[in-house]
Amino acid sequence: MNDSDAFHDLGFAKVDVARPQRVGMAEAIYGPGKSPEQCAGVLKALLSGPPGSPVVLTRANPEQIEACLEVDGSARVSGGKMLTATWRHREPSGEKVAVVTAGTADLEVATECAATLVAYGIQADLIPDCGVAGLHRLLGELPRIADAAVVVVVAGMEGALASVVAGLVGAPVIGVPASTGYGSSLEGATALLSMSASCAQGLAFVGIDNGFGAACCAVRMLSARRQET
Amino acid sequence: MNDSDAFHDLGFAKVDVARPQRVGMAEAIYGPGKSPEQCAGVLKALLSGPPGSPVVLTRANPEQIEACLEVDGSARVSGGKMLTATWRHREPSGEKVAVVTAGTADLEVATECAATLVAYGIQADLIPDCGVAGLHRLLGELPRIADAAVVVVVAGMEGALASVVAGLVGAPVIGVPASTGYGSSLEGATALLSMSASCAQGLAFVGIDNGFGAACCAVRMLSARRQET
Amino acid sequence: MNDSDAFHDLGFAKVDVARPQRVGMAEAIYGPGKSPEQCAGVLKALLSGPPGSPVVLTRANPEQIEACLEVDGSARVSGGKMLTATWRHREPSGEKVAVVTAGTADLEVATECAATLVAYGIQADLIPDCGVAGLHRLLGELPRIADAAVVVVVAGMEGALASVVAGLVGAPVIGVPASTGYGSSLEGATALLSMSASCAQGLAFVGIDNGFGAACCAVRMLSARRQET
Amino acid sequence: MNDSDAFHDLGFAKVDVARPQRVGMAEAIYGPGKSPEQCAGVLKALLSGPPGSPVVLTRANPEQIEACLEVDGSARVSGGKMLTATWRHREPSGEKVAVVTAGTADLEVATECAATLVAYGIQADLIPDCGVAGLHRLLGELPRIADAAVVVVVAGMEGALASVVAGLVGAPVIGVPASTGYGSSLEGATALLSMSASCAQGLAFVGIDNGFGAACCAVRMLSARRQET
Amino acid sequence: MNDSDAFHDLGFAKVDVARPQRVGMAEAIYGPGKSPEQCAGVLKALLSGPPGSPVVLTRANPEQIEACLEVDGSARVSGGKMLTATWRHREPSGEKVAVVTAGTADLEVATECAATLVAYGIQADLIPDCGVAGLHRLLGELPRIADAAVVVVVAGMEGALASVVAGLVGAPVIGVPASTGYGSSLEGATALLSMSASCAQGLAFVGIDNGFGAACCAVRMLSARRQET
Amino acid sequence: MNDSDAFHDLGFAKVDVARPQRVGMAEAIYGPGKSPEQCAGVLKALLSGPPGSPVVLTRANPEQIEACLEVDGSARVSGGKMLTATWRHREPSGEKVAVVTAGTADLEVATECAATLVAYGIQADLIPDCGVAGLHRLLGELPRIADAAVVVVVAGMEGALASVVAGLVGAPVIGVPASTGYGSSLEGATALLSMSASCAQGLAFVGIDNGFGAACCAVRMLSARRQET
Amino acid sequence: MNDSDAFHDLGFAKVDVARPQRVGMAEAIYGPGKSPEQCAGVLKALLSGPPGSPVVLTRANPEQIEACLEVDGSARVSGGKMLTATWRHREPSGEKVAVVTAGTADLEVATECAATLVAYGIQADLIPDCGVAGLHRLLGELPRIADAAVVVVVAGMEGALASVVAGLVGAPVIGVPASTGYGSSLEGATALLSMSASCAQGLAFVGIDNGFGAACCAVRMLSARRQET
Amino acid sequence: MNDSDAFHDLGFAKVDVARPQRVGMAEAIYGPGKSPEQCAGVLKALLSGPPGSPVVLTRANPEQIEACLEVDGSARVSGGKMLTATWRHREPSGEKVAVVTAGTADLEVATECAATLVAYGIQADLIPDCGVAGLHRLLGELPRIADAAVVVVVAGMEGALASVVAGLVGAPVIGVPASTGYGSSLEGATALLSMSASCAQGLAFVGIDNGFGAACCAVRMLSARRQET
Repeated sequence: MNDSDAFHDLGFAKVDVARPQRVGMAEAIYGPGKSPEQCAGVLKALLSGPPGSPVVLTRANPEQIEACLEVDGSARVSGGKMLTATWRHREPSGEKVAVVTAGTADLEVATECAATLVAYGIQADLIPDCGVAGLHRLLGELPRIADAAVVVVVAGMEGALASVVAGLVGAPVIGVPASTGYGSSLEGATALLSMSASCAQGLAFVGIDNGFGAACCAVRMLSARRQET
Repeated sequence: MNDSDAFHDLGFAKVDVARPQRVGMAEAIYGPGKSPEQCAGVLKALLSGPPGSPVVLTRANPEQIEACLEVDGSARVSGGKMLTATWRHREPSGEKVAVVTAGTADLEVATECAATLVAYGIQADLIPDCGVAGLHRLLGELPRIADAAVVVVVAGMEGALASVVAGLVGAPVIGVPASTGYGSSLEGATALLSMSASCAQGLAFVGIDNGFGAACCAVRMLSARRQET
Repeated sequence: MNDSDAFHDLGFAKVDVARPQRVGMAEAIYGPGKSPEQCAGVLKALLSGPPGSPVVLTRANPEQIEACLEVDGSARVSGGKMLTATWRHREPSGEKVAVVTAGTADLEVATECAATLVAYGIQADLIPDCGVAGLHRLLGELPRIADAAVVVVVAGMEGALASVVAGLVGAPVIGVPASTGYGSSLEGATALLSMSASCAQGLAFVGIDNGFGAACCAVRMLSARRQET
Repeated sequence: MNDSDAFHDLGFAKVDVARPQRVGMAEAIYGPGKSPEQCAGVLKALLSGPPGSPVVLTRANPEQIEACLEVDGSARVSGGKMLTATWRHREPSGEKVAVVTAGTADLEVATECAATLVAYGIQADLIPDCGVAGLHRLLGELPRIADAAVVVVVAGMEGALASVVAGLVGAPVIGVPASTGYGSSLEGATALLSMSASCAQGLAFVGIDNGFGAACCAVRMLSARRQET
Repeated sequence: MNDSDAFHDLGFAKVDVARPQRVGMAEAIYGPGKSPEQCAGVLKALLSGPPGSPVVLTRANPEQIEACLEVDGSARVSGGKMLTATWRHREPSGEKVAVVTAGTADLEVATECAATLVAYGIQADLIPDCGVAGLHRLLGELPRIADAAVVVVVAGMEGALASVVAGLVGAPVIGVPASTGYGSSLEGATALLSMSASCAQGLAFVGIDNGFGAACCAVRMLSARRQET
Repeated sequence: MNDSDAFHDLGFAKVDVARPQRVGMAEAIYGPGKSPEQCAGVLKALLSGPPGSPVVLTRANPEQIEACLEVDGSARVSGGKMLTATWRHREPSGEKVAVVTAGTADLEVATECAATLVAYGIQADLIPDCGVAGLHRLLGELPRIADAAVVVVVAGMEGALASVVAGLVGAPVIGVPASTGYGSSLEGATALLSMSASCAQGLAFVGIDNGFGAACCAVRMLSARRQET
Repeated sequence: MNDSDAFHDLGFAKVDVARPQRVGMAEAIYGPGKSPEQCAGVLKALLSGPPGSPVVLTRANPEQIEACLEVDGSARVSGGKMLTATWRHREPSGEKVAVVTAGTADLEVATECAATLVAYGIQADLIPDCGVAGLHRLLGELPRIADAAVVVVVAGMEGALASVVAGLVGAPVIGVPASTGYGSSLEGATALLSMSASCAQGLAFVGIDNGFGAACCAVRMLSARRQET
Repeated sequence: MNDSDAFHDLGFAKVDVARPQRVGMAEAIYGPGKSPEQCAGVLKALLSGPPGSPVVLTRANPEQIEACLEVDGSARVSGGKMLTATWRHREPSGEKVAVVTAGTADLEVATECAATLVAYGIQADLIPDCGVAGLHRLLGELPRIADAAVVVVVAGMEGALASVVAGLVGAPVIGVPASTGYGSSLEGATALLSMSASCAQGLAFVGIDNGFGAACCAVRMLSARRQET
């Protein structure tokens, strides 16, 4: 643990190049609060480390993306107002994660989740707009959802979809409370509390809008499974 | 409005005997914070007013119930830790309200609701334990729910049931966030926020544990309907 | 329930074309977080479904409105910063809903409510600026309010108007906590809590600024009534 | 300011015997967290100071009351679960403060307020149970309220009564948010927020259940007035 | 109370022209959420009512001010980002209210308070920057503060100044929690809670940033006093 | 989904006997708010269903336990103030879940988690008291933690342990915010927020004190893995 | 860091016997949630470690105290409802910490702080009841406060005292928000927020009621100082 | 205390020129809410006072900086969006404070802290990006951290780093909860609560983003130490 060689010190950042060995995933570059140059610097350090883990830049703005593409232009970039870029993509493993959203407005967060999964070689089956106000939409997609190894549910407003899905399938279900909605949605806090008080057995969840975190959670599960076999 | 004869002044309370004429329901006697004698006094004043409206004592303890039964022993009493007593019951009107609960622990609040409805001559069809963790239980009861003029949904924890029901039937749906659950349920605040941010069109709701209020809301709807016809 | 033909899958959205049959109202198009093209796509799907229900676009910006008008120019558009557009208006039914506001600043939310009601053939009697600081304004409008089948009360700040109205009329009263006000209004949370703790019997309410939801709630009530007769 | 003789040091307390000279009122003895002996000790110190100000013990339990009565048995004691005792009562000044409550359950707090006023020689006109669910009760009492120099309004639940009263009379109105109610009342926080966001011009208020504070506020207003004339 | 002539109905607003007779102050025009034309319309209605009360426009933007000045150019306008305009100023009565602020950044709210007071003929003695971090500044101003009939304390951050002032003078003290500060100030909620839990006897307060409300509260106190004499 | 035979209707409860087929786990019996007889009734229904899934009674009191043991005395009972009972234990599968706690006081919640795991045939390796104030305790246990297929971290107060563990191992980590601690712990809400804002990649968590939920989450993960192989 | 000999594993607890070497203080025994036997077991392990640091048991009940005294009867025990016991007291160092409280009810928390300080050989100068409502009491004690190397301020309600003290002395000031008070005090959260938004330069604070933590903070400061010299 | 000469009255501000004598630090100029001219005016007053204390302008915008540089161009200016300027720097004392951050995005707050320390002659050893997700980064820097007289930890999100550091070193540790992060970070409130409920002995902290306050806290500690020796 004490090995100070295990990180690259850039002055403004200590890039944790040992993380893939430790937790099976490279450190992500969190965009907000970093200059484009800082993002590029961290990227360079991560890419110069030992290969084997995808690299992900999250919640980035166009300037940060541009600076990073100059470091390495091989990234896949996705998203709208909030961009995700990924490098060093793994080969598709054949595993599948369903990323279900309650509404169209949750797609931004779901896209971050899917982009991360894809970088890790996992197929992300994006199933949008299954909100509980029209339950048959969800029921119609059940076969597709039941086919996935892990299910991620992105839901804002009252976040009920996560509970409902966890009551319908036996796979691990990871909720992502989203900040979509207005007024009583309290910018995602309502969905967070709602998932946290879920009556469904074994629903786990991550922080508000944390699509990246949900993907990493799925990566952990699937990596563990792979090591086992 | 200014008619001071429209209430009985008992010193510690001004009994609003004009309320039935005004809003179609008698003032209820809210138990907590009143002595048994005060409860009995208010009851006496309400029963001495013009007939035509049921009288309801809510959230009462056994001492309050006893004192009120001495005033008029014709009450129906229901509930467990929190008692409801009703007087001057209306004849059954043939109308039906479904009172759906998410779990067995929500029955206390549902019972207050049902007792109030019954006092107003409305059939309360109590359908417990339809929580979304086992959705087929709800779906199996849909015909019974769809048969009701109004649907009340009592749900604690994440309160998702109210949204789901409102997405399945066209009748008015009134949610009652319940304080059941522990930890993240925040004594009902989670369910309140959840219902308040519901994605279902036209779900209305009342305050935490306010089964009586939901019943009154249904009474308003059905009274209006009756006047119309 | 399992009929997957009951929705149009647009990739980014599953349009719930079966909703009118199920709950008596078409799915609404919630503007925020959708591109103009997405709004137009959902509109097209909804309009291609079986007729019989109005279609409502809520909380839209001018670009979204424009894209939707190109799909079908027959909409009525109302509102200021937050626009509502409606298609397939029902014939006036003769029913009337009073939409009472506490202040002039609550008109934005009330307008969304009224536009939805009108689309459903219900007359919306808009009665603004009846806040409790000048109670005679409300009392002067009581005959007009008492003439309505349902009363919607839009109130920000302390939201007291909803309680007061529910104490004066016997019709169903639906409160809409509004985000008007500043500081202690906490962007509508104060009014939400206030309505939720109302001392008035049978007041129901919807989420913060949810004028559309209050209208749908009234539609449910009046539809139920109509079926009855 | 630096005069250390201006307080009696009892070891566990520094009794502020100079307070009457400074703010026109003696320090009150706040019961909770003090032993009966500590209460009695503070009382003794206050009574040994210069005369001229009433002394008030608030939120006391029977043991504390008993210990204090042994120090000086001339107290008036009032209240139910939470007791108030007062010593050194002023002669009635002829001034009147209306203490209006929303419900019977608010009487506990109103009693603390009234007992304090009476100790200061001010007539407390207790007008209970004027909640806005039956507005005519309030309107019927308007002449009595309008006759008071200051109006205190104790209201729990949504606390709307304070706004309504402040819209009806020109006298200073002091709201006391009460912890009465359950669920959404959030132990008084809802009423506090509600009063804090009041639409009525010039409503001021004190902390939750602080009947004593409201009385002191009225004492300040009336003392100032007296000095003026 | 039922006199519908007591307000001017402008369609979007019911101007409460009877308010001066009722509570001694004209209705204020709250700027946010109103168009410049709406502001001007309300102003015109208020000015056409019976004379005798100042008229105040609060929290206005420059466009609203301009539209109102075209109605009546005699206004005094004050403030920075948030403007206050006043019409029909009363003659100076000789009464004085001290408006004490904790910091320079609280001056915006204090200015709204002072402008309102001055319109009502009350001298506003503005005493800025007396925060408790340098207590001698406050102590140095004590004679000036003690000379006022009422003291208003505007304080953000932890809002401690209101408690301290109320412990030093016997006049009525009205706290205004201000939204100044950052982070833990929670946009004024911290100061609101802090004042609400004050240990000082008889401190009353108004909502966050409500300088206008504090002025109205002082107007109520001084009017009552005047009537008395 | 619509098969109403899929639940046993006990009147007060609809026992979801189809849940094992659907999500791989039987419905649990949540103790609070149920009478001992109701608990026993649900247990009987669950045990009469198709075998194959353990049955768990959570958060029970001694009376509930006793009533259930009369139904079937083969239960294992564990816990202190809050009891867990399990029936129909699965054969040990050889899989291991580490249940790490921050302090001794978190053992109550950890015990519920472990008892549930054991019932499902999973070895629960309980590793208490690894709080971050003495980090070497955690580091000393790393080999044991790294040996587990899934890691559950129960932590109250600031809940930091979950983030730290998730930064050290690659297995899936499930946090359980605990209500241990006092004051600023806010009965678990602080730990919930803290885990929800974790900087560690891929940490998922469940609601406050929901040890049972964390176990179910692990069961989902391991079941999925087993099916795969 | 990896040395697993650095703690005693008792099964239910890993006693961090290396903490004195690491942070200069032994691990404390936090009472709540531990059985008397567990408390005694941890105590035994701590006392069997290398000498040199006092041992503190906090927030204990009488049964826990009794069990610990059987292990080692040399403890000093202090407090009322919440007991503190200390072992292995250091020789008095001559250093002094002032422990100032706002009111008498804050003494419980102050006592925990003082007992911990005394165990570490630091003189605790307890100065109670200096609340800002009677500022001269504080000013009268200034010389005594200024004589201390560190100042701890325990204050509930609005917690203003901490800001005021930090504006008067140059020594490090540590605030302890206390849960004293009622209603708006929100069980200490108001004081926590208030201290957190303090306008005084360089005030630091600890969690609600954490008198022990404040003492440890002072121990850290004074140890550092001693090492320096 | 009453000496009114102890401040410069600028009309809009009372500059506390006596503060260095009192608490060892000059009043800081808090930028937000002040015009550039007001900032410059306060600066001039502070610089005209007796020398001996650095002067700090915090959270300033470029216009405020410019106006202040015209008063005295000798300032050091640092920061990005939020600027800090310092005047009258002390000679380096040789003392060192470690300013550790959890992530790169916390550097803004850390910079304010460091700039203040440097102005006071204290070496600020900035150690960024030691978040607990990669614990070895922190452990690798332990020797450098252990070498400091005081440790400041700036951490957003769940703020766990402060607890971890306080468990590793014996020096005084001051946490600064930062508003970095999104969603569940609640703009720093999560980190504030988390630090406030820390399990580490003797961690103290300041308000959200208050890097200046943490520096002042360190200045107090080191000044006290210096006086001692």
